[in-house]
Parts: sequence; C-alpha cells; structure tokens
Amino acid sequence: MTVEQIQQNVDFIKTLYENKDMRGFKDAINTYEPMEVVHILEELSPDERVIAYRFLQKDLALEVFEQLDPELQEQLLHSFSEVQAVQLIEEMEADDRVRLLDELPALVAERLVTKLSPEERKKTALLRGYEQETAGRVMTPDYLSLNKNMTVNQAIEKVRTSDVHRDTLTTLYVTDESRVLIGIVDLQDLVIAKPDQTIEEIMNDEIVYAMTDNDQEMVARMLQEHDLIAIPVVDRERRLVGAVTIDDVVDILEEEATEDFHKIGAVGKFKINFREASVPFLFRIRIGWLMVLVFMNIFSGAGIAYFEDTIEAVVALVFFLPLLIDSGGNAGSQSATMMVRALATGDVVFRDWFKLLWKELRVALSMGVVMALGVALIASFRAPEVVMVVAFTMTLVVIFGSLIGMSLPFVLSRFNMDPAAASGPLVTSLADIAGVLIYFSIATWYLGL
Amino acid sequence: MTVEQIQQNVDFIKTLYENKDMRGFKDAINTYEPMEVVHILEELSPDERVIAYRFLQKDLALEVFEQLDPELQEQLLHSFSEVQAVQLIEEMEADDRVRLLDELPALVAERLVTKLSPEERKKTALLRGYEQETAGRVMTPDYLSLNKNMTVNQAIEKVRTSDVHRDTLTTLYVTDESRVLIGIVDLQDLVIAKPDQTIEEIMNDEIVYAMTDNDQEMVARMLQEHDLIAIPVVDRERRLVGAVTIDDVVDILEEEATEDFHKIGAVGKFKINFREASVPFLFRIRIGWLMVLVFMNIFSGAGIAYFEDTIEAVVALVFFLPLLIDSGGNAGSQSATMMVRALATGDVVFRDWFKLLWKELRVALSMGVVMALGVALIASFRAPEVVMVVAFTMTLVVIFGSLIGMSLPFVLSRFNMDPAAASGPLVTSLADIAGVLIYFSIATWYLGL
Repeated sequence: MTVEQIQQNVDFIKTLYENKDMRGFKDAINTYEPMEVVHILEELSPDERVIAYRFLQKDLALEVFEQLDPELQEQLLHSFSEVQAVQLIEEMEADDRVRLLDELPALVAERLVTKLSPEERKKTALLRGYEQETAGRVMTPDYLSLNKNMTVNQAIEKVRTSDVHRDTLTTLYVTDESRVLIGIVDLQDLVIAKPDQTIEEIMNDEIVYAMTDNDQEMVARMLQEHDLIAIPVVDRERRLVGAVTIDDVVDILEEEATEDFHKIGAVGKFKINFREASVPFLFRIRIGWLMVLVFMNIFSGAGIAYFEDTIEAVVALVFFLPLLIDSGGNAGSQSATMMVRALATGDVVFRDWFKLLWKELRVALSMGVVMALGVALIASFRAPEVVMVVAFTMTLVVIFGSLIGMSLPFVLSRFNMDPAAASGPLVTSLADIAGVLIYFSIATWYLGL
Repeated sequence: MTVEQIQQNVDFIKTLYENKDMRGFKDAINTYEPMEVVHILEELSPDERVIAYRFLQKDLALEVFEQLDPELQEQLLHSFSEVQAVQLIEEMEADDRVRLLDELPALVAERLVTKLSPEERKKTALLRGYEQETAGRVMTPDYLSLNKNMTVNQAIEKVRTSDVHRDTLTTLYVTDESRVLIGIVDLQDLVIAKPDQTIEEIMNDEIVYAMTDNDQEMVARMLQEHDLIAIPVVDRERRLVGAVTIDDVVDILEEEATEDFHKIGAVGKFKINFREASVPFLFRIRIGWLMVLVFMNIFSGAGIAYFEDTIEAVVALVFFLPLLIDSGGNAGSQSATMMVRALATGDVVFRDWFKLLWKELRVALSMGVVMALGVALIASFRAPEVVMVVAFTMTLVVIFGSLIGMSLPFVLSRFNMDPAAASGPLVTSLADIAGVLIYFSIATWYLGL
C-alpha cells in the first residue's frame, strides 16, 4: 500500500458510512488495516466515531484502539461499559496505557487501574510513579535481559520463548545478579554472532543510558544523536527499569516541536487537537498572551503621546509609523525564530551569544541600510521633508529589533526559562516601543521641533 | 554514560586543547566515543577543528567523520589530500555520502565520485539519479532480500554471512525472481519463528511501501504512523530498490520542522548552521521577505494618508494606532502558527477549513470583546473622547486578524503552495492594513469628521 492507496480506502469507506450503507460499511471496514481504520475514525464526528467503532471485530478493535490519539481513546472509553474499558486497557502496552490514564479524570483512572490484572497494575504503578515528561514516565517496562555467561544460542532461545512485546526485542540488555546494567546487545549482533560465543564477548559495555528523571526531550536527542533504536533507563543504583524506544522518540520530538511552534506564535504550550478543541478552551489558551501584549503596548501609546507636538507639526510622520515599527518587529521575529529553534535543537548554546550578537549586528546593519534606501524612495514621492528621518529611523529600528529578537531567547535560557517564550508577537511589541521612541526622537531633533 | 558524563568529557578535553596540551589532548581524545569527539569538534573553530581532527586514529577518524554534519564534513574535506578524501567517502554509507556530495561544489563532487570503487560508485549514481527530498534520494540501497521458499534457518544463515550494514538488518525483504517486493519479515519475527518454517509462512504480505519519487516528509510520516523501523522503496514496476530507515526519519522530520519554523518567522526555508553561517548568507536569506513586507506596508501608509484630516482633528487617535493594529496582528499570528503546524502534522486537512472558520469566528469574537474592554479602560484615562472608537475597532481588528491568520495557510495549501509561507510577519502586515482602514473609518464616522 502506498499513501495514495490508503487515502483511497479511507475515502471509499467514508462514502459507505455517509450513504448510511451500514451493512457494506461493516463488511468493508473489517477488511482493512488498523491504521486505515484509525484514519477513518479520526475524520468522523465524536458520535459517528462511537457507532463506527462498534462495528469492528474484537481483535481489530483492540489494535485500532491502541493506535488512536489519547483524546480519541478517552472519548470512546466513555461510551463503553466498565468491563469493556478494563479489557481494552489491560491489552495496551504499559506506556500507552499511562498516556491514556493521564487524559482521564483522576477518579475514573484510579477505578480502572484497580481492575487491571496484578501484573499490569504493577507496571502501570511503576510508570505513574515518575514525573510527567521524564524518561521513567515514557519508557516501556517490557524488556528482555540476558546474563553475561549465556551463549549466543541460549540467548536466542530465550528471545524465542519470551513473551516480551516484539517491538522491544531489537535491543537486549545484559544485567548482573542485582539487575545492574552492564552491557547491551543488538538483536542483529546476536543473529550475526557465532552460536557458541558468550554474551559477554559480543556485548557492548560502552552503554549510553538515561536516568528515570531525565527530561524526555533530552533522552530523545540522545537516541537521535547516537543513532540508537532503544536506550536503557536505569535508577539511581544503575539498576535497569525500562527502555525508551525510537518510535516514542519520533512522537516526543514532534510533540516538543509543536509546543515550541505554539509558544513562538504566542499560543501557550498546549497540545491541541483542533478538530476536537472547544471554543472556551481555545479562548483560554490565547487570551492571556494577547492581554499581556495589549498592556505592553500602552508604552508605545505613551511614547506617541509624549511626542504629540511633533506629530501635530508634521502629520506626514504618521504615514510611516506602521511601516517603520513593523520593520523592526519583522527583523526581530526572524532573529527570535531562528534562535529559538537553534537553541531547541542544540545547534547553539548560551556561550555562543556574544559571538552571534556581533554577527547579528553586521547582518542587521546591512539589512537596515538596504531597507532605509527602500523607504527613502517611497518617502521621496509622498513626503520629501521626512526622507532623512525615515531612512535613519529604519536603519536603527532594524538593528534594535534584530538585537532584541536575537538576545531575548538567550536571556530567557540563562534564567532557566523557556527560550520559546520569546515569541514573535512579544518581540514585535518590544520593537514597537523602541521604534516609536527612536522615530519621534530623530524627527523632533532633525526637524528642529 | 549519561548526558552529564558526556558533557563532562567534552569540557575536559576542550580544556586540554585550550591549554595547548597537545600531547594530553591526543591521548585523551582517542579514548572517547565517536559521538563525544563529534561534540568536541562542533565546538571548535574551523581551523582548530582541522588540527584536532588530525590527532584522531584512523578508525575513530572514519567513524567521527560519518557522524558530523555535512557542512563540517565539507570543511574538513577541503583540508585533506584527494587520496584521503576519497578514502573517507568510500567508507561512508551511500545515503550519507550523497548528502555530503550535495554540499560540495559540483566539480569537486564529480571528481571524487569517479575515484570511488565501482560498487560504491554505482550505489552513489543510483541515489543521485533521484530528485532531492524524495524517498529515492534518502534511502539506503543496502538491504537484505530473501526468497519466499527459504526456511527460517536458511534465512538466519544468510543474515549471518551477509555483509550488509548491520543498521539495515532490522527488517528483511522478500522478493520474487524479478526483484518485485512480495513481503517483509522483521528480524525479531525471524528469530522468534520455528527453524523449519518457510519465509512465506512468516512473512507479512500487507506491505506499506514508498515509491522512489514520494516526498521524504510523506514517507517519514508513513513510518511514524505505522510504527515501522524501515519502509521499503520500490520503483514503478514495484521492484525493490532500497529502504528508508527510522533513524533517517527522525532527521527528516526535524529538518522539515526547522524549515517550517524558519518560514513562519519569515526567514526562508534554508537549513542554517548558525555557528558557521556567514554574514552575507544570513543577509541574503532574510532581506527578501523584509523588503516584500516594507512594500506591503505602503498600503497602511496610504490608508493613513487618506485619513490625514481625521488625524489632524483628533491627534489622540494616533496614541492607540500601534496597540490596535498590533492586536489584530498578534491574534492573526496565533491562528496562523497553529494552522501551519496542524497542516504540517496532518492534524487538519483542507476540507476542515469551513468548520474551523466558524469556530475561529466565535473564539475571535470572545477575545475581541475582552480586549476591547481592556483598551476602553486605558482610553478612558487618556482620551475619553475616543473610548467607543477604540473599543469597536479592537473587536473588529481581532476578528479580522484571526480570520486572515487562520485562512491564509489553507488558501496557500489549496493552491499547492506551502502553508508555512503564511508567516507571522506576513499576517501582521495584512492585519495592519486592515486595522488602519477599520480604525480611521470608524473614527471618521463616529466622531462625525
């Protein structure tokens, strides 16, 4: 199947549903792959989704449920009897289960957990004991551990007969008697090795590992940088407790990139499912920043009021006000966006600030001069008396805006705050205040007002 | 090793280098892991980097070179003799090699390619025959294919004796006589299977595959959604030609997220290494958008000029100009940022536009009213005569800004343009023009001017 074929299947089955051909729908949907069913369910309304889900055969229903977003899992769960809900949750992998439980109301989550089998309840409690967004919370507690004295053949036999989920079999861990991690063996290496070699001979004892309380993004970056398929997670005594796998890393990095994206757009750090988000929720996550920016803008208003006489003398100055202050804000947004991303991916670190500031100054000066020529050209047609004023102002506001935009993410990171809080709109507002003051100061001085 | 330990090693060895203890530096650096050496090299200046690299023993030097960014590889390469350069490039994996060759001047790249061994030259030519950012270009041509009539034991023996790079052994491909892909077998499943089962019995024939000309981001999302470790790439005749592996997916998605980040900050779609980027390069990628925005802002200037009489009559209106037009731009930036990201991750698609527009209208109205109350409060102290004007204007500009910000990404995607081109600064400039017209129109009408 290619992407196009999957999309065709989704469209076909949606048409059956929309034409109320429930018989055809039921027959067709049960022949599809879980992922295709997931795509279809995602495109239905909450009510339709519950109905469609009930047409699935039990095995398919289970697989589909596991692959749905936690928000949609939660919606469906409310329509099930408690027995059905417990059955579904019991079958999920421990880390996915914990992610779902985090979405549920605390009381519902607790009641469901008490109904799980003792083994799954224990795994669930282990993960839920760690902070959100840490390695402990996102790891899978299912892994296969080997003894260093085993032969390769014995190890392969252990892999064959183990009931560990197959996704976590790509890397095997070697531990001593007290469960302390002493090495790792990739499944490929085990297969390639000679049958009578010992695990100790083929294991890699230069292990990169994460601690349970390490931040999930940091752990994801370790896997990425070291090209690992899984990374072991150990406790303070270096005892193995789980592993974070590469498929989780893709999701973690995507989630963190989305968070940064939303912060730079001044939306807040929320994970949002747009099709499902309510109006009050969207209002709540957006209004805070907007109000802060409104009150910051009082300063640019006050700056203008201070120069009221200048404006009354030469009203033409106002024509260029949005253009000039926007240009400073735009150049600043560029710098801030680049720095936020570069700090997030680790491309730059705090100590690079001074070096980059000097470079930014030269870039901003070049841009400012070119833009000043542009605006001088425009002004020479409309208001020749202010040509020099707008040209000088343009150069200075672009430099100020760029330096603010570049520095704010570094300053925030210095005080252990999130660099991404240096959003475009925040930089724009700061650049506006600076722009108003620069513009009218130069005008008052140059025009001798 | 944890992240903290790696950082300590990096700091220690950097200190040796900075103290000019070259003997100690040489001894120490050769005891470290390739990834640690990469971290150290990244933090040195280009000249220091060449010197430090020459202290590495041959095997370590090779491994380090493979893990460096293509930009740094290119820098180092220029300091080598051609024989050394060819040797390094010969040892790289084909997809990494192609990425490096893309960075080099065309003539240099061609000369190096002709010096490769026939086998590696052929692989290189294969990948370079495909467009940039397609599955064909980023795939690895190294894979292991099995025959469906083999037993599990024969297959394991083939894996053991193959010289395919071990990273690409996690998934094995089953092909017929004409190399057409008919199934896949995960290495885990091979190990778990009974030794005398045939490959046909254990293979999965519901294969998700990519075409050579599929976009790399789309292929990355297929791996992510289906939780795959590798995806086979086939040509038009469905013959297997390579595979895209999960470690490449992490890099592809990161690269695409960075591109979108830069676009939303109106920086252009370039991949930038900040520590290395030159002033002229940074100037070039930023000035284009800034100049476009300058010329767009002529419209807001013209709007203000049109209302010159209104402004001369009530100069206090100017106090609130930045505040009002910024608010529309800020609300619009929020919407645009959320939509760009949601379209990029596939959370929303074009047909959701109308539904989301209606929701956005309600969100924007609520925000607009609250912000109008805020600005009315401020105005009542400074300029009571314009309270009603600024309050009405605020409500309308927030609604306009939000609808522009939300719609622009959809409109761009409709015309097969990149939604991320709807950057914050662009939305801000459009909202400014609308804001100026709304503000002074209401003022002229309400104040009877």
